[in-house]
Amino acid sequence: MNNARKWYDEIDDSGIYMSSRVRLARNLRKYPFTLMQTDQTAQSVITEAENALMRGGEDFWNNFIKINIDEKKDIEKYSYVNKHAISPEFFKRRGPKGLFLTLDEQLSVMVNEEDHLRLQAIFPGNNMEKAWERISRLDDLIEESIDYAFDKDFGFLTSCPTNTGTGLRASYMAHLPMLEFVGEIGSVAQAVGKLGMTIRGIYGEGTEPMGSIYQISNQVTIGKSEEDIILALNTVTAQIIEKERAIAQKAVTNIETADKVYRAYGILTHCRKISLKEAVALLSEVRFGYVSGALKEKRPKNNIYAIMMNIQNALMQHNCGRSLREAEADALRAEFIRNSFSI
Amino acid sequence: MNNARKWYDEIDDSGIYMSSRVRLARNLRKYPFTLMQTDQTAQSVITEAENALMRGGEDFWNNFIKINIDEKKDIEKYSYVNKHAISPEFFKRRGPKGLFLTLDEQLSVMVNEEDHLRLQAIFPGNNMEKAWERISRLDDLIEESIDYAFDKDFGFLTSCPTNTGTGLRASYMAHLPMLEFVGEIGSVAQAVGKLGMTIRGIYGEGTEPMGSIYQISNQVTIGKSEEDIILALNTVTAQIIEKERAIAQKAVTNIETADKVYRAYGILTHCRKISLKEAVALLSEVRFGYVSGALKEKRPKNNIYAIMMNIQNALMQHNCGRSLREAEADALRAEFIRNSFSI
Repeated sequence: MNNARKWYDEIDDSGIYMSSRVRLARNLRKYPFTLMQTDQTAQSVITEAENALMRGGEDFWNNFIKINIDEKKDIEKYSYVNKHAISPEFFKRRGPKGLFLTLDEQLSVMVNEEDHLRLQAIFPGNNMEKAWERISRLDDLIEESIDYAFDKDFGFLTSCPTNTGTGLRASYMAHLPMLEFVGEIGSVAQAVGKLGMTIRGIYGEGTEPMGSIYQISNQVTIGKSEEDIILALNTVTAQIIEKERAIAQKAVTNIETADKVYRAYGILTHCRKISLKEAVALLSEVRFGYVSGALKEKRPKNNIYAIMMNIQNALMQHNCGRSLREAEADALRAEFIRNSFSI
Repeated sequence: MNNARKWYDEIDDSGIYMSSRVRLARNLRKYPFTLMQTDQTAQSVITEAENALMRGGEDFWNNFIKINIDEKKDIEKYSYVNKHAISPEFFKRRGPKGLFLTLDEQLSVMVNEEDHLRLQAIFPGNNMEKAWERISRLDDLIEESIDYAFDKDFGFLTSCPTNTGTGLRASYMAHLPMLEFVGEIGSVAQAVGKLGMTIRGIYGEGTEPMGSIYQISNQVTIGKSEEDIILALNTVTAQIIEKERAIAQKAVTNIETADKVYRAYGILTHCRKISLKEAVALLSEVRFGYVSGALKEKRPKNNIYAIMMNIQNALMQHNCGRSLREAEADALRAEFIRNSFSI
């Protein structure tokens, strides 16, 4: 664990946009795809990826840490998933795997997930352009030394045909408590689906969407340029966010709204034990309060999303270095939250 | 309304005892009892009472205000009931009535309630001796000029035979959240009943006991001296309070208790609207927190009981000088509570 500030430490609680992410699926032409590969070729892919990154120069390379995910304890693996650094599928896969992650966790390369390479750039807030620019440079750098599996008709070839073409998945993470509250997420999802995009809840460890945070992403990766895919996603996301903002603007004049966010703040800053589910729900209300202006209390040291992640059981256990009983976790969670809010 | 500090402003939130009260029922020998009296004799009783009080000297008499309860609006009448200055029966009775109340509201004389005179002394905390001493002096003063209806066998004669004898009702007000929480009020009431005493909830405007506050008082007024009645009440009350304290001492080590009182504090200090019922329940939890030591937050400007009284609809409307819609009252109540806690 390094102490550099991470992308999620930089999320600003004054907007509905929480993060902008781009990932590219890439494979090496000269090796069988992951489903068919031997441990030996899997290892070769890792080596080639590492060499490709090292070509970025010392300053660039020094910014990366190489993580042997198989050597990590389960709770640490889950914490990487929580932080969006890896997919849950990644650490479940057998055979040699590699993970290269920058200190700020903005840039990552997963080796031998579903594809040989999954490049990812993630930025706080509404920063898709930055993310796209960053991932393109990384993609170019790797291509200098690696021959990608590419077909002039299909584009980039991938393990799963749903990624073939651009191999691109762009996604926004957005906080949509009002759309959720008025029950409009379903109709939004339907509309978005017709445009080749999707919206889904971000899950913590539970089975319910975590704290009204949603991910909006493209589903279609073929037949359009990367720029067009991103442009369409930008447009749709902006519309969703406008809708959220319009409902919020009305709600914010109600005393019911003020009461809700202030009570949430009052409980979070005073409770002595709290379940993950309740904490996340109250944190979501408090974030809404900050974003909408309904809550005029001091902000916590870290942003709400970072707090939400830090109070997941996996990350708490990781930070404690041991497993925790539920009652213990509830008490530690309350303490962590109180400390976060006491400036 | 005068601005002198009242007995209830002096209640200390560090003990289970909240107040000590004594009242004496007295009647004038020369007039028919209240049930049979004419408006003319009722008026004479008021005049005789006033003259008797004036005999206490200028300093004593200047401390009293004479209140014409019939001229007051209903909401103001209710506010006197809430403050225990008068009984609800008092202002419902027809015919001339008098009320003499000291500025600190510790001493009162109701004229033409059920009996010609009801003398009352009420002190904050565990102060029965003081209350008894004060009411005795008042009783002696009045007796200097008024011939009480007294029978050498029965003692003081009263409208209702349950008051005959000493005419004394002594009562403690005590905060018993733990006995209530563990469901022991019923068995305590049974035990107390066998000893000629009673325990009952203090009611605000609702139908449930208000904020776990109970009144313990003697039922039997005849066949024993005043001192013996008070002594027995003291003993029984001390036992009840010891029981409450024992449960509290155990509860205070639980994180559940800490969580409950801190959440109550967090909500009260942040809510933007709150019903009377919820507010009183949370104030009771916060008071328990202060008394037991489970809550280590700053105390409000005024004591919890005074806050409870000030947020009753009647008193809020009285202070606003107009009737309030429920939503308005809930918002004002929240504001009043927040202000009380912000030092």
